Amino acid sequence: MYIRNDKRAPNQLRDIKIERGWQEAGEGSVLVSFGNTKVLCTATFDTSVPRWMKDSGRGWVTSEYEMLPRANNERNSRESRKGKIGGRTHEISRLIGRSLRAAVNLEALGEAQIIIDCDVLQADGGTRCASITGGWVALKDALLWGKENGFISDIDLVLEKQIAAVSVGILNNTPILDLPYEEDSRAETDMNVVMASNGEYVEIQGTAERQTFNRDELNQLLDLANEGCGELFKLQNNLYK
Amino acid sequence: MYIRNDKRAPNQLRDIKIERGWQEAGEGSVLVSFGNTKVLCTATFDTSVPRWMKDSGRGWVTSEYEMLPRANNERNSRESRKGKIGGRTHEISRLIGRSLRAAVNLEALGEAQIIIDCDVLQADGGTRCASITGGWVALKDALLWGKENGFISDIDLVLEKQIAAVSVGILNNTPILDLPYEEDSRAETDMNVVMASNGEYVEIQGTAERQTFNRDELNQLLDLANEGCGELFKLQNNLYK
Amino acid sequence: MYIRNDKRAPNQLRDIKIERGWQEAGEGSVLVSFGNTKVLCTATFDTSVPRWMKDSGRGWVTSEYEMLPRANNERNSRESRKGKIGGRTHEISRLIGRSLRAAVNLEALGEAQIIIDCDVLQADGGTRCASITGGWVALKDALLWGKENGFISDIDLVLEKQIAAVSVGILNNTPILDLPYEEDSRAETDMNVVMASNGEYVEIQGTAERQTFNRDELNQLLDLANEGCGELFKLQNNLYK
Amino acid sequence: MYIRNDKRAPNQLRDIKIERGWQEAGEGSVLVSFGNTKVLCTATFDTSVPRWMKDSGRGWVTSEYEMLPRANNERNSRESRKGKIGGRTHEISRLIGRSLRAAVNLEALGEAQIIIDCDVLQADGGTRCASITGGWVALKDALLWGKENGFISDIDLVLEKQIAAVSVGILNNTPILDLPYEEDSRAETDMNVVMASNGEYVEIQGTAERQTFNRDELNQLLDLANEGCGELFKLQNNLYK
Amino acid sequence: MYIRNDKRAPNQLRDIKIERGWQEAGEGSVLVSFGNTKVLCTATFDTSVPRWMKDSGRGWVTSEYEMLPRANNERNSRESRKGKIGGRTHEISRLIGRSLRAAVNLEALGEAQIIIDCDVLQADGGTRCASITGGWVALKDALLWGKENGFISDIDLVLEKQIAAVSVGILNNTPILDLPYEEDSRAETDMNVVMASNGEYVEIQGTAERQTFNRDELNQLLDLANEGCGELFKLQNNLYK
Amino acid sequence: MYIRNDKRAPNQLRDIKIERGWQEAGEGSVLVSFGNTKVLCTATFDTSVPRWMKDSGRGWVTSEYEMLPRANNERNSRESRKGKIGGRTHEISRLIGRSLRAAVNLEALGEAQIIIDCDVLQADGGTRCASITGGWVALKDALLWGKENGFISDIDLVLEKQIAAVSVGILNNTPILDLPYEEDSRAETDMNVVMASNGEYVEIQGTAERQTFNRDELNQLLDLANEGCGELFKLQNNLYK
Repeated sequence: MYIRNDKRAPNQLRDIKIERGWQEAGEGSVLVSFGNTKVLCTATFDTSVPRWMKDSGRGWVTSEYEMLPRANNERNSRESRKGKIGGRTHEISRLIGRSLRAAVNLEALGEAQIIIDCDVLQADGGTRCASITGGWVALKDALLWGKENGFISDIDLVLEKQIAAVSVGILNNTPILDLPYEEDSRAETDMNVVMASNGEYVEIQGTAERQTFNRDELNQLLDLANEGCGELFKLQNNLYK
Repeated sequence: MYIRNDKRAPNQLRDIKIERGWQEAGEGSVLVSFGNTKVLCTATFDTSVPRWMKDSGRGWVTSEYEMLPRANNERNSRESRKGKIGGRTHEISRLIGRSLRAAVNLEALGEAQIIIDCDVLQADGGTRCASITGGWVALKDALLWGKENGFISDIDLVLEKQIAAVSVGILNNTPILDLPYEEDSRAETDMNVVMASNGEYVEIQGTAERQTFNRDELNQLLDLANEGCGELFKLQNNLYK
Repeated sequence: MYIRNDKRAPNQLRDIKIERGWQEAGEGSVLVSFGNTKVLCTATFDTSVPRWMKDSGRGWVTSEYEMLPRANNERNSRESRKGKIGGRTHEISRLIGRSLRAAVNLEALGEAQIIIDCDVLQADGGTRCASITGGWVALKDALLWGKENGFISDIDLVLEKQIAAVSVGILNNTPILDLPYEEDSRAETDMNVVMASNGEYVEIQGTAERQTFNRDELNQLLDLANEGCGELFKLQNNLYK
Repeated sequence: MYIRNDKRAPNQLRDIKIERGWQEAGEGSVLVSFGNTKVLCTATFDTSVPRWMKDSGRGWVTSEYEMLPRANNERNSRESRKGKIGGRTHEISRLIGRSLRAAVNLEALGEAQIIIDCDVLQADGGTRCASITGGWVALKDALLWGKENGFISDIDLVLEKQIAAVSVGILNNTPILDLPYEEDSRAETDMNVVMASNGEYVEIQGTAERQTFNRDELNQLLDLANEGCGELFKLQNNLYK
Repeated sequence: MYIRNDKRAPNQLRDIKIERGWQEAGEGSVLVSFGNTKVLCTATFDTSVPRWMKDSGRGWVTSEYEMLPRANNERNSRESRKGKIGGRTHEISRLIGRSLRAAVNLEALGEAQIIIDCDVLQADGGTRCASITGGWVALKDALLWGKENGFISDIDLVLEKQIAAVSVGILNNTPILDLPYEEDSRAETDMNVVMASNGEYVEIQGTAERQTFNRDELNQLLDLANEGCGELFKLQNNLYK
Repeated sequence: MYIRNDKRAPNQLRDIKIERGWQEAGEGSVLVSFGNTKVLCTATFDTSVPRWMKDSGRGWVTSEYEMLPRANNERNSRESRKGKIGGRTHEISRLIGRSLRAAVNLEALGEAQIIIDCDVLQADGGTRCASITGGWVALKDALLWGKENGFISDIDLVLEKQIAAVSVGILNNTPILDLPYEEDSRAETDMNVVMASNGEYVEIQGTAERQTFNRDELNQLLDLANEGCGELFKLQNNLYK
């Protein structure tokens, strides 16, 4: 049977930390760690909306993801210097935005925009899942700020869902939870699962990296993701006790 | 019960057409239609590889997706004029590339690159699935060209899998197959499923557009996708009889 | 005497086809073929004008030309990926725009903009002339749409001229009409002539590619262009019978 | 009959000045004035060629045209700040490059590149013609430098043709030579004619700005251009006496 | 002791020329030469302000610096072709803008913007100092134009300070004034000093190129700069006698 | 007399913290705080040099500075999204690079490049000075890594100077040390001083923001900077005890 290099059980998360109020600026500011992966999630509560939403009575939630140039073992050129954003950055930004938008009732939010900046300070696999999990806390903090400052009347009407995300994958035919980079790069199948705390799915993105996967494997992966997200929901909730 | 505007049964594909050899140029050139969605898939067999693969002994398969400005009801500005590619274009190009790469044994291909250009001439939902399904035919034709021209010795070693893709979704609580734009824009859940002809999954991307979905619904959607891809595999195979 | 590879007489056009209503979207949608050259010309009737024309009481006609990456024998990188439009694309877009603008009384059009997208699906010489010739049909169809939809009252006041274009050149000292790529690349002199159906010139662009040309040769080339455009006008007119 | 605002006869050039050696740097450096139009033409003799010409044994001549932001009455934004070159700049750069390339036997030049930078210090119509006329002098000076420095053995083999250009147009039905901005902006027809000193044409670009033109008018315009270029050839030759 | 190649005394400026009204266009147009360094400074008086200053009641002064591609001995690629402005261009544009803004009472100017374009025609060291010194004259001329045209009532309230700039440096341990390129490239320390005519400093930018410098050396450099700027103020004043 | 809002004496630094080894990746990784200003300085030891330095036998030190979008009170758009780097970012990156380059003997370094990434996590004035001060520690750590890994033989030959930087300014006619944002935005004069531990200057950048300054004031500001940098040198040294 496959033994993980870091000795974790197949269904065990890495050490997870979520720190609120990490920065002075930002209506929500969260440093989230999934093991060595560290992402700074900063929520900006913008009382104006993008032009195309003006007078719609609805709000918006969006996200921008980016990695520091030396978040990885190798230094990557800055996208600002290259003059364009890469496909991976675009893809992940959109996933985070969609996932967190699903948490919010945009009509109840009214004409305001929440921007969640997810800057990866250190990358060791699972950066998009950490961004969503930490981003939800930053989002909640920004909405609490909005409530305190009179932009929102009833926060429960606005924040309809609790959201978290985790990666799962198959390595040496063993389904495993929360893959660090070294497992991720060897996995046969790789899946990111975004869940709501009602146990339902917000987004499922599964990719056969080296081998196609069947329905049974898919179900095992989803079981693992349910377990992992369950723990993440508890950790999120502990922050507000 | 939900009745589709175009009278199709929930598990029925739109009218699918795949025409080989549509253009003179291109080692593979395929016009694929899923109803009113029309994509021109052109495969280029490039006997050189990108610099980062030089001397690796392996080949590469990649894809570039783009829509003509008036493929939709509203005209969109050209990305070439804006000077940058949008997030959606990036995301879809990467999905098609990953999916078709999964079909090929890159070591057996050797140092060559196949580029699949997917240009959407007319868009009515499902453009990425049509691109993958038609792109696989263009890929196969390019490999056949490579065989005829002495770049490939055994095509069965190179083209390991047959790939097709279809969209599924939930609308009015009814799981449906192959959504045109008007259904897609109203769906509660939207999923793109890329399959191999062995019945296994290459990529699953499910998104809760309006409502989260549970495991049962997921399984119903995957059943529909299996049916739909099964028919697409037959249509692909008919082209080579 | 010079015998053309495709056996045509020096003053003979290639096989010309102009198909209206090729796409669902677009107020005008025309697929035009000059032999193996195929251009999709799509006209968008935009009821707003660019900002700098606001409140001028006048309309505008413009064009954007682009080639699919594998329209040629060799694949070219997409300009959207390069992040900028090349000089040739700019030059041809401007020529088409100027030529079709000459057909229209902009005051009579009123504050509306017609955008003619010319996307080259397959290139074998003469793409700019095919774009202008097919673009005029797309333009007319868009104006007919404008009439039907109440944006234009009298189409004859708006569409003042009928426009077509053809390439001429000198090869082996022989003036010839409508050059495919293989002739174009060997020609001593190359000229694109845009004409109105009154027999007058809208635009003449002649270039000494390998040899300067004199007034006699110029006049012979213009005679050929007159002949060729004459036939193109007939073909355009046949579409509206 | 039409009387020109500056009292010139219809076939009269503006005051033309061509100053060689205007700058210290540049293998050729020419300030050319056509009336108030002033262009600095600087030729760089580059002993390497662009990559795509390596080992071809042939050389290259190219040009880059640009206007200072306040060359006109209104200030225009810098293209460097906008991050892209406009269509007009591209179109004119290409015309100048083609025209001056026609002067040179690229095989005889050998593997070297001449770049002609044409920077418009002040614009009052005819900037592209001034650029070509002054650019030819800068080109010749750069070739003389190449001869002195041992890169060229026989300059007459390399510089095969003498090139000049002038604008002509029809205003109030009167064909006129060398239009300043105020005439250019009112002209019915506008034509730029690039000639070689053997009386033949290198490039003809005629545009019906407000009215189509017929063969007679074309011939009158070409007669005027022949006269104008004839004088420009004399002025160029005087510089080398 | 260090003898300068051009025989100047350590505290001697190069030959300075400032020509007003060099171009037709531009509310101020100045060609300034510091020896072989030649910069064309053109001031545009824009009666509108950038959007972020609207309704502020204040005006703005800004600058854009750029070098012609062959201003130097080696040709540099155009920043417009590269699609982005380099760091050096940005840095110098900002320095000139800040320095000239310091000359003006922006409240007294009212809602108007002066843009100073500094285009380096020939570069031989000290281009930023020449730009500031000549730019101040162009600025004054633009304000005089504003007075004549009724946009400014009292020019002395608007133009509060007279500004000039000069480079100083240490070469072979000798403090020297106004360095041409060949000295600049060998200097141990390099400083640009922007002064007001009251003898005070507007901007000091000192850089240890090869050796750190101490307070004594700094003071000697500032003494030289005081001398140099003193002469530049006289030359500026002579233009308005 | 002017009393600072944070009660500091005029010559008192904010609370300074420098933490080494902050990230796993990076040959040097330092989090530096000047009060609420926090910059992550990461040094990459790259064993190759930029192309233009190949075979020169010399190394290079460079820096890239960037702010996170919500480092400030207001969110700023990402430069990667805008597709270009702003002038301020360019200017500061160049200053840091020049300053840290001055610390190193590039010949002794040999063909290697050290890149110092300075990412501002939180901004409250003085970000460029914090970047230089923390960047020097990251640089030293990267060189120590180079020594340990055999790329450098004698670190004292390579790291010739110890460098730190501090801002000084005049507010209400009082010279003060180490300005936070709220002082910086009101200061009459603002100066950044980069020093070496021998008490000499590496770079001085003084700007009259609201009022020109005289020699006396300059000397008082430099005295303050000497004091401040003296303390910073001690803090840097303490890290290596």
